[in-house]
Amino acid sequence: MSEPVILVDPLPRTLDLIMTPPVRARLERLGRLVISEEQPMSEEEIERLLPETVAILGQTAMPRERLERAPKLKAIINVETNFLPNIDYAACQERGIWVITPGSAFAAPVAETTLGLCIDLARGISAADRAFREGTETYGLEANVDTIRFEGSSVGIVGFGDLGRKFRELIRPFRNEVRVFDPWLPAEIIERMDCRQSDLDTLLAESQFVVVFASVTTENAHFIGAREFALMRKGTAFLLMSRAAVVDFPAMLDAARGGHIRAATDVFPVEPVPADDPVRTTPNMIFSAHRSGGTNDALLQIGSMAVADLELILRGLPPQLCRRADPTIAARLRSQPVSRT
Amino acid sequence: MSEPVILVDPLPRTLDLIMTPPVRARLERLGRLVISEEQPMSEEEIERLLPETVAILGQTAMPRERLERAPKLKAIINVETNFLPNIDYAACQERGIWVITPGSAFAAPVAETTLGLCIDLARGISAADRAFREGTETYGLEANVDTIRFEGSSVGIVGFGDLGRKFRELIRPFRNEVRVFDPWLPAEIIERMDCRQSDLDTLLAESQFVVVFASVTTENAHFIGAREFALMRKGTAFLLMSRAAVVDFPAMLDAARGGHIRAATDVFPVEPVPADDPVRTTPNMIFSAHRSGGTNDALLQIGSMAVADLELILRGLPPQLCRRADPTIAARLRSQPVSRT
Amino acid sequence: MSEPVILVDPLPRTLDLIMTPPVRARLERLGRLVISEEQPMSEEEIERLLPETVAILGQTAMPRERLERAPKLKAIINVETNFLPNIDYAACQERGIWVITPGSAFAAPVAETTLGLCIDLARGISAADRAFREGTETYGLEANVDTIRFEGSSVGIVGFGDLGRKFRELIRPFRNEVRVFDPWLPAEIIERMDCRQSDLDTLLAESQFVVVFASVTTENAHFIGAREFALMRKGTAFLLMSRAAVVDFPAMLDAARGGHIRAATDVFPVEPVPADDPVRTTPNMIFSAHRSGGTNDALLQIGSMAVADLELILRGLPPQLCRRADPTIAARLRSQPVSRT
Amino acid sequence: MSEPVILVDPLPRTLDLIMTPPVRARLERLGRLVISEEQPMSEEEIERLLPETVAILGQTAMPRERLERAPKLKAIINVETNFLPNIDYAACQERGIWVITPGSAFAAPVAETTLGLCIDLARGISAADRAFREGTETYGLEANVDTIRFEGSSVGIVGFGDLGRKFRELIRPFRNEVRVFDPWLPAEIIERMDCRQSDLDTLLAESQFVVVFASVTTENAHFIGAREFALMRKGTAFLLMSRAAVVDFPAMLDAARGGHIRAATDVFPVEPVPADDPVRTTPNMIFSAHRSGGTNDALLQIGSMAVADLELILRGLPPQLCRRADPTIAARLRSQPVSRT
Repeated sequence: MSEPVILVDPLPRTLDLIMTPPVRARLERLGRLVISEEQPMSEEEIERLLPETVAILGQTAMPRERLERAPKLKAIINVETNFLPNIDYAACQERGIWVITPGSAFAAPVAETTLGLCIDLARGISAADRAFREGTETYGLEANVDTIRFEGSSVGIVGFGDLGRKFRELIRPFRNEVRVFDPWLPAEIIERMDCRQSDLDTLLAESQFVVVFASVTTENAHFIGAREFALMRKGTAFLLMSRAAVVDFPAMLDAARGGHIRAATDVFPVEPVPADDPVRTTPNMIFSAHRSGGTNDALLQIGSMAVADLELILRGLPPQLCRRADPTIAARLRSQPVSRT
Repeated sequence: MSEPVILVDPLPRTLDLIMTPPVRARLERLGRLVISEEQPMSEEEIERLLPETVAILGQTAMPRERLERAPKLKAIINVETNFLPNIDYAACQERGIWVITPGSAFAAPVAETTLGLCIDLARGISAADRAFREGTETYGLEANVDTIRFEGSSVGIVGFGDLGRKFRELIRPFRNEVRVFDPWLPAEIIERMDCRQSDLDTLLAESQFVVVFASVTTENAHFIGAREFALMRKGTAFLLMSRAAVVDFPAMLDAARGGHIRAATDVFPVEPVPADDPVRTTPNMIFSAHRSGGTNDALLQIGSMAVADLELILRGLPPQLCRRADPTIAARLRSQPVSRT
Repeated sequence: MSEPVILVDPLPRTLDLIMTPPVRARLERLGRLVISEEQPMSEEEIERLLPETVAILGQTAMPRERLERAPKLKAIINVETNFLPNIDYAACQERGIWVITPGSAFAAPVAETTLGLCIDLARGISAADRAFREGTETYGLEANVDTIRFEGSSVGIVGFGDLGRKFRELIRPFRNEVRVFDPWLPAEIIERMDCRQSDLDTLLAESQFVVVFASVTTENAHFIGAREFALMRKGTAFLLMSRAAVVDFPAMLDAARGGHIRAATDVFPVEPVPADDPVRTTPNMIFSAHRSGGTNDALLQIGSMAVADLELILRGLPPQLCRRADPTIAARLRSQPVSRT
Repeated sequence: MSEPVILVDPLPRTLDLIMTPPVRARLERLGRLVISEEQPMSEEEIERLLPETVAILGQTAMPRERLERAPKLKAIINVETNFLPNIDYAACQERGIWVITPGSAFAAPVAETTLGLCIDLARGISAADRAFREGTETYGLEANVDTIRFEGSSVGIVGFGDLGRKFRELIRPFRNEVRVFDPWLPAEIIERMDCRQSDLDTLLAESQFVVVFASVTTENAHFIGAREFALMRKGTAFLLMSRAAVVDFPAMLDAARGGHIRAATDVFPVEPVPADDPVRTTPNMIFSAHRSGGTNDALLQIGSMAVADLELILRGLPPQLCRRADPTIAARLRSQPVSRT
């Protein structure tokens, strides 16, 4: 009987990027690794390996016919962390093949940066640093005329998945009143974390800080636009931490330029941003070049979560750390493979 | 019998700055206010009022002979928040006159800013914003080559009074290992807040983030100098949040300039900083022009804490919110009145 | 087109027991309820309803052939909260039919009682109350010769599902060192909750409090027996909160009788316990007649969790509150329907 | 020059009861110990030692004339933990002699027991254990007809010193709405701990659990009587954890006997309670024979807090762990030395 094969096809990741040597050693104990890191694994090799493959680490296309030629397959683990339409999710479900992704690995670094940006928008940290460098700083009380306090302010979270919940945990000591808008969740989940379920309009009108973690779906593109920015109170701090397409980007820039909001964004409609893009000079904003999540430790989390769950699956147990690709959700998400993070 | 007098001599504060109308109304119920806000109260007026004065809100000089002429005096509340050498503390203690100050009012805004600066030093928020404005930004993983995570990092707190403890509460969700150096405190106080008591050298050598909240005393001026910066590991984030004199400032700038540390400071040896001071161009630093504490809400806290404690004192109860001027400590502190915050 | 049917077959529950009127009203908005509460729904009625049934609330047997006659079925929600072998779980998975149960509804009341029992075992609350009633009480220090403190003690949790995690949350302020043994979980899950993964023997030997929340499976019956009790230190507090079959019950009674452990149990091998069962006079024990979970609020949680998740499922979204019947797990669990709770 | 003397006169404590050997060793480094543990120190010995005494550990009477003969005295540390009227507190204050007590040592064990009693009153733990021993137990839902949940219930705390605050910390995970009545505290202290300041009547009428930690003063004896019990809702759980004299004890027993409240008490008007006292058969009560605080670890805390603060005082620093005898408060407290705890 041949050894079980673990097909490793991780691009744009590489194994070294996502696994420490001890984690990789754990993976190697689970089967024979066949790795393609320079380029996506070739059709021929995939076909040759399918009969003995028990698990796939990567983004290999797995239509129904391939699944049928992989009778021992138990798990497909997407290590890029966005589910792609190149898998027949329904066929996997029928077969009891776990399709999972350690997407929550990015939650911690993004949440941390988000809190840093919240405090910066509140207290003017980067703006004051710029002023000091330019010799135009003010001191003490005078320097705080326009500042607000993050502690005790009302916070609205749009999208309450891993990111939103991690952020909520980080801000607990700040005693904010927290509203959550997430149409995919029941009130119970939200209330257990000491937040209030809210419709979007109320959240926008009542929150001094509005933080967007929502994914882009086929249904919600640009769902925060000029009308929504107008609903916010003057001086609201708006943070865009998920995907640019969630927001009407020019409307956001207008609202910041006019001083209606102060804003921070980690994402842009086109990345890299063109050199002469007017976004670069928009006042009342803090810019982060899609860099809030991609830390070394987050990448290593991807690997350790993947391996820990694969260990469970090959013991006949359900995975505990990765997110499952519920077919209905996977179909709604407009995921596009990232080239960078 | 004459009405009790509350002598209000608050400069550089003014009553409106530190009290909302409801708080002022509570103060007015405690006695007849005599207020001097344009200039320090005159000798003549003070002398005239002493016999009926039950409380002083402000920084009025109170040597022993004045205290003797104020037989009804129960409380002196310093609203500038640094005890001055213009009071005979021992005489107050003998008489059972409370000498207190609502200094912890600034703890919350300073702690919040400190966390914002920690995350900024870790994740490069303001530097990345500057790069983006200049068109030199990098994205994703590439942008995180030099970043560290605040979550999970070791933290050293130098000085564990109101500021240090508030900061410690704010960072609880980040699960740092926290060392504390404070020679005025027993280990029990430190361990109750889930920190480890440490000597200074160990703290400096083991902490990825070193945060200085220590007051300046007659004993500790410049106690963090070139030797101490050399003890820190390369890449340590150093935050100076209390008084510039605690640190050998040029040594700090050298350590930052050479890339040995990354630093943030809220205080400077001379404020305002001269226009051409070379500090302004020191790399690897974030600058904050003595602005971390002076928020409107902190000033209003001063007033509400002062009034709440005065209410207790005039009922014969001990104050609960303000800090007491323990004579031994008051003598050690090299406090100088601030002109701004 | 006919209205969607929700088949309600909840015995031993009844709808009134598990739903407040507002929750029931939400359920009624989802389809036409057909309810059988006096007796299990008859074969004839089930067969008649299958073609239009979109959801089942209850424990109705659903073998493959019935599932095939229910083409619109989207969800089976077990409201007794133990999965039974009367469902073809694999067939449900193939079809994408959610099989779920709001079992975590009992976690909160069980965890609360468990903490009460821990403190009672530590501090002798019920024993001291009995002594006082009998006039044999001792006072003060003398009464504390044999007591221990729960705060700061080492705690071992055996089984880290909903119950174990809720208990862990409740005891956070007590600052215990917490070890967890759960062979179905990766270390990451355990460490995220500030516990240490442990093998069973180490946990038993090192914990002053051993709390068993583990389910009974085909593999673990009686896995805590005489050998395991001998591993515990003298004076260990042992709490059995899940199923009697997890433990060698006579061995537990022996260990308590001999004074090696102090114990509390919520479950018994046969319930009701026979009148003359010697368990009733075993010293060093606290007895709870399978009553830690069955509170009114827990039953109402069952209903509200079931309805909230059914709302999501019928909108095409995954459930968020109930536990899913992973086929491999469901097959391992030796669940037997309870007649009482 | 003679060595400084530490006068140790600790009865009813003994040094071994309150200090581990390492703590005692720390004490011995501070001066020459002169110890009287078999009987209170004799007049003659005290007089002989006064000139060289720097600190007193114990309850030695210190009227003004003795203080005058102890010119080096810096600290009096009461290790019984109730301030007595045998000290001239005003004279100590004049001299800057610290009079302190490590009374908060008992807060942790009392708070732990209090939570155990709250859960017991809510869930009927000791009553169900008694029923099981008598063979009259009921099971499951039937056994929970009269139970309530502690989690989520409204809680009223009467007296918010060390005990009340420690209890408040312990119950945080239970998410109660907490009201506090304490006329010696400003609202700020109460609100910082996420409680609401309340008058007594509102607290009694709105709380499902009323916990009394208030000290007895010259003003508040029996302040909870028949009128106050009538204000409580039927089924309220009432816990008396401080001093019997705070309550009209017969009125409490009447309210429990009639089923209006369920109650637990750790204190009794006369202790030991007479053998035939009818309190012993009062239904709906849990009895604790003044045993909630007197644990070994609490006694050892007394010693370690005393020594840590004495170390600070002898370095010229203010104490940090013990409570200070504010003269006004000390005079109000009707403290009587305990003979047991």
